[in-house]
Amino acid sequence: MSSPFVNRRVVLASRPAGIPQAEHFKIETASVPELEAGQILVRNAYLSVEPAMRGWVNAAANYSDPVGIGEVMRSFAAGQVVASRHPDYAEGDVVMGMLGWQDYAITDGRAIRRKVRERDLPLSLSLGVLGINGVTAYFALKECGRPHAGDTVVVSTAAGAVGSAVGQLAKGWGCRTVGIAGGAEKVALCRNVFGFDAAVDYKEADFEAAFNAASADGVDVYFDNTSGRISDLVVPRINKNARIVICGTASVSNWQPWPTGPRVERHLLNKTATMQGFLVWDYESRYEEAVAYLAQQIREHRLNYREEVLEGIDAAPDAIAGLYRGENIGKRLIRLHDDIV
Amino acid sequence: MSSPFVNRRVVLASRPAGIPQAEHFKIETASVPELEAGQILVRNAYLSVEPAMRGWVNAAANYSDPVGIGEVMRSFAAGQVVASRHPDYAEGDVVMGMLGWQDYAITDGRAIRRKVRERDLPLSLSLGVLGINGVTAYFALKECGRPHAGDTVVVSTAAGAVGSAVGQLAKGWGCRTVGIAGGAEKVALCRNVFGFDAAVDYKEADFEAAFNAASADGVDVYFDNTSGRISDLVVPRINKNARIVICGTASVSNWQPWPTGPRVERHLLNKTATMQGFLVWDYESRYEEAVAYLAQQIREHRLNYREEVLEGIDAAPDAIAGLYRGENIGKRLIRLHDDIV
Repeated sequence: MSSPFVNRRVVLASRPAGIPQAEHFKIETASVPELEAGQILVRNAYLSVEPAMRGWVNAAANYSDPVGIGEVMRSFAAGQVVASRHPDYAEGDVVMGMLGWQDYAITDGRAIRRKVRERDLPLSLSLGVLGINGVTAYFALKECGRPHAGDTVVVSTAAGAVGSAVGQLAKGWGCRTVGIAGGAEKVALCRNVFGFDAAVDYKEADFEAAFNAASADGVDVYFDNTSGRISDLVVPRINKNARIVICGTASVSNWQPWPTGPRVERHLLNKTATMQGFLVWDYESRYEEAVAYLAQQIREHRLNYREEVLEGIDAAPDAIAGLYRGENIGKRLIRLHDDIV
Repeated sequence: MSSPFVNRRVVLASRPAGIPQAEHFKIETASVPELEAGQILVRNAYLSVEPAMRGWVNAAANYSDPVGIGEVMRSFAAGQVVASRHPDYAEGDVVMGMLGWQDYAITDGRAIRRKVRERDLPLSLSLGVLGINGVTAYFALKECGRPHAGDTVVVSTAAGAVGSAVGQLAKGWGCRTVGIAGGAEKVALCRNVFGFDAAVDYKEADFEAAFNAASADGVDVYFDNTSGRISDLVVPRINKNARIVICGTASVSNWQPWPTGPRVERHLLNKTATMQGFLVWDYESRYEEAVAYLAQQIREHRLNYREEVLEGIDAAPDAIAGLYRGENIGKRLIRLHDDIV
């Protein structure tokens, strides 16, 4: 017997070598099976699109096993429980978690990250500034960046979902913030909406001179989402005891062959600086601490965000590639429906 | 008026671009002036020779200002106070500090690192395993490497003055130790004297395979004194939450042009690993903690060391270049005399 629900889902059709393109996915339709004891059925309202998903489909060594061919694309999603045979969840609960690019997800609860309790704020935020992006910004900056008032904090991908939050949190903690973004529109956002003290455009010919001027006192914290030539300009400008947080490598389009760059060891040694990789999964047990802080900042109008909402699941297959084309402004989401009860 | 003492001193004659060679120094003779109030006169017994001294004479950005042309070569030395007009020092005190490559040093006390109180142990040790080398090993491993029992700790320059101590301390703290050294003699020392669980020769053709076999469970702590191709093999093998301590870059002979290598960011990200530069000067206030621990390890025969003693100040000018030629085994020193009262 199957339930009355029909599920459209985006599965991985073939394995990309680099950035996953639309042709690496296909959309299937399937009926939703009846729930077994201990399971819940979630109707997704919003699907997340984020740069890290590129790594989730690549075969290369990564921090998690890759999505299998034919499997539903792994992703965060937010939605509502429409049926439950699980003691911890009731019909009507609003949840977010690793529910995948699909209309309906069945889980025994392990895919659920949390119940969304900030019902005064838009549900979509639970995938962005109140989701993995904001939580990443909070812990990466607080625990790895360890900013002190007066520090210069440099953020690459400063107009992005994570970077924009990093900049605003750092500013709130008394730091001077320098954003790096691509294009005049994003640079203006950094200055006017996300409150960076300075913002520079890495696509401009005078980027190096502009960045050097914006970081005249050196760099105490570098929140790095790009690697590549942006980092190659930032790293030599670090101050004594600087902290470099590696959160992503967006500028590297391919890891085969492995890219080379100027060696960092001497910079780290001369400045007794730290370069540290960050994965938000390591802070799972403290997730609510971050969400509570971020939600309060939003309510007090001290944390701005931008969203770019694509309509319908057909937008999903090309959505990651679009991120890497730099076409989005703000957190990219796919809206399936708005019918949260 | 001048004192009856004649001082031979090694001064920097010209600035080297890379590794300082004998021709970059010259030896001068000068009379020793009378002491002013607040000064002491130290007769040096041992002069230190260490890889970091290369950086002290290079104009390139470094962690300290370079030695000026015509100035006495900066170095650690150990000796005895032969005259004092300083309330904290008495004739006969044995001291070590930044006394320079010379027979006699005059200081107002600021050049003195410490009084040497381990008179039951050879004075030369205060420049090696009980000096900056041992103290470096202790704090770099303890505070940056943060080893846990059962960790695999990889040490480059494992037969050297610092690396050999790192390996033995790590072993004493319950770790499995893998040493990397150049040549059969040093590899044998690593195995037989410094107690490494495995030691591999980076000069052998099968280095990569041998190292991979020796680090089959991955690398939890990498104490790096080399950078370059050794690091390029080690870094991809790090485990989750690995700590890479950058203590030196001995394999890089020149920083102009700045050398390139495989990018480290993705490795650090995938493993949420840390790469941190270490300078022992940052631990000055805790120097005695390290010396006390190391001295006790030596007395209990749990910390072995090797010294290579060059005789007389004429050996100094070529001594740094010789380090980089890899010709020494153990801590390199220059003995001026043995007449400690």
